[in-house]
Amino acid sequence: MNKRALVLFSGGQDSATCLAWALERYELVETVGFDYGQKHRVELDCREALRGAMADPKWGWSGQLGDDHMVNMQALGAISDTALTADKAIEFNAKGLPNTFVPGRNLLFFQFAAAIAYRRGLEVLVGGMCETDYSGYPDCRDNTLKALQVAMSLGLDAPMVVETPLMWLSKAQTWALAAELGGADLLDVIRRDTHTCYAGDRTHWHDWGFGCGACPACELRAQGYRAYEENLA
Amino acid sequence: MNKRALVLFSGGQDSATCLAWALERYELVETVGFDYGQKHRVELDCREALRGAMADPKWGWSGQLGDDHMVNMQALGAISDTALTADKAIEFNAKGLPNTFVPGRNLLFFQFAAAIAYRRGLEVLVGGMCETDYSGYPDCRDNTLKALQVAMSLGLDAPMVVETPLMWLSKAQTWALAAELGGADLLDVIRRDTHTCYAGDRTHWHDWGFGCGACPACELRAQGYRAYEENLA
Repeated sequence: MNKRALVLFSGGQDSATCLAWALERYELVETVGFDYGQKHRVELDCREALRGAMADPKWGWSGQLGDDHMVNMQALGAISDTALTADKAIEFNAKGLPNTFVPGRNLLFFQFAAAIAYRRGLEVLVGGMCETDYSGYPDCRDNTLKALQVAMSLGLDAPMVVETPLMWLSKAQTWALAAELGGADLLDVIRRDTHTCYAGDRTHWHDWGFGCGACPACELRAQGYRAYEENLA
Repeated sequence: MNKRALVLFSGGQDSATCLAWALERYELVETVGFDYGQKHRVELDCREALRGAMADPKWGWSGQLGDDHMVNMQALGAISDTALTADKAIEFNAKGLPNTFVPGRNLLFFQFAAAIAYRRGLEVLVGGMCETDYSGYPDCRDNTLKALQVAMSLGLDAPMVVETPLMWLSKAQTWALAAELGGADLLDVIRRDTHTCYAGDRTHWHDWGFGCGACPACELRAQGYRAYEENLA
């Protein structure tokens, strides 16, 4: 497709799959990452390995991998520190949100991405948001992101399309999408070079990748991979 | 009105008038400023003087002035530094935009404000955007901000109303609105404690305030004030 895209690229499984998806269909694909003092920088460190692997001409994708951009999101720290009112503290607690939660964070990420995309002549933003996993995060919902596309396109006075190829996929289907885009070799790249584990564990190897194997993120990733393999059998 | 608001408050004439407007109609009003390394910090320095003056009970406004928030927007610097493509450099030049321009900047400000407002239990965002003055900035347009309200409210899963009381006013009408809200005393506060001048001049006094009197911002402010006075005569 004769378009240029910017992928919101964290170095996790979802955004890595989105990067492959974008390289397969657009003529030029750049990436953007957000550094907001994550506990585990391993996910950000995975980004370079993934970009290197995805740039390999062996995949036969039409798209060229372009520049990488990094946005320092220290400002999120100030928002996290803003005192919650008593009512909101009760609400956050009831919803299981940490009191450092920044509501609408994904809208901010997209908006920064849109500013970069505009300056770089890119017309499509690609994000790995998914309704199946993130039902608790209204800023990942399809309705939200479609409304945001309208607001951003009006605010830039230029079309800025938001694509979320994983929106309706299960985790097993996301593994299947990677296999469809690059076969067993791409599955290997995504298993090895993407990071999910909350504990930041990059030493214990499982068939679905590195991780502690016990945290909720590892469990979700393992379950998805298991379900993908069972569908194949 | 039984609502609570957050005013995007730069310390300029427009946002100061918005603060008075909000204090007159909401029960609690907080303020937020964005520090993005402005050339002239005088506008930010004006904020405290204005907040002090506006908190005076003599105005008889129903609203209580609450906390002030400041967001460090260093990340905008990184966006400003993102290399423009050759096409975009030509476009920016043709539109008279500096090559450091961050497209959609006002949407970013509103989204940061929305995150703070949600945490503080505030349901209304007030901004001094105006179609008359900023026709070149599509992120100040009424359609853009109404679409943004929808995106933000969906992304927060809670109503977040965007109010822009100056949207259709001329500069003369903005002076008249201040007079309506607080008479000659409020006009004096806004003339004295708000800043507009691009040169950062706070030494030369004119009937419309401090400023160099020669830059485009001073000219616009002076013209508006003149037109306001002529309408009175």
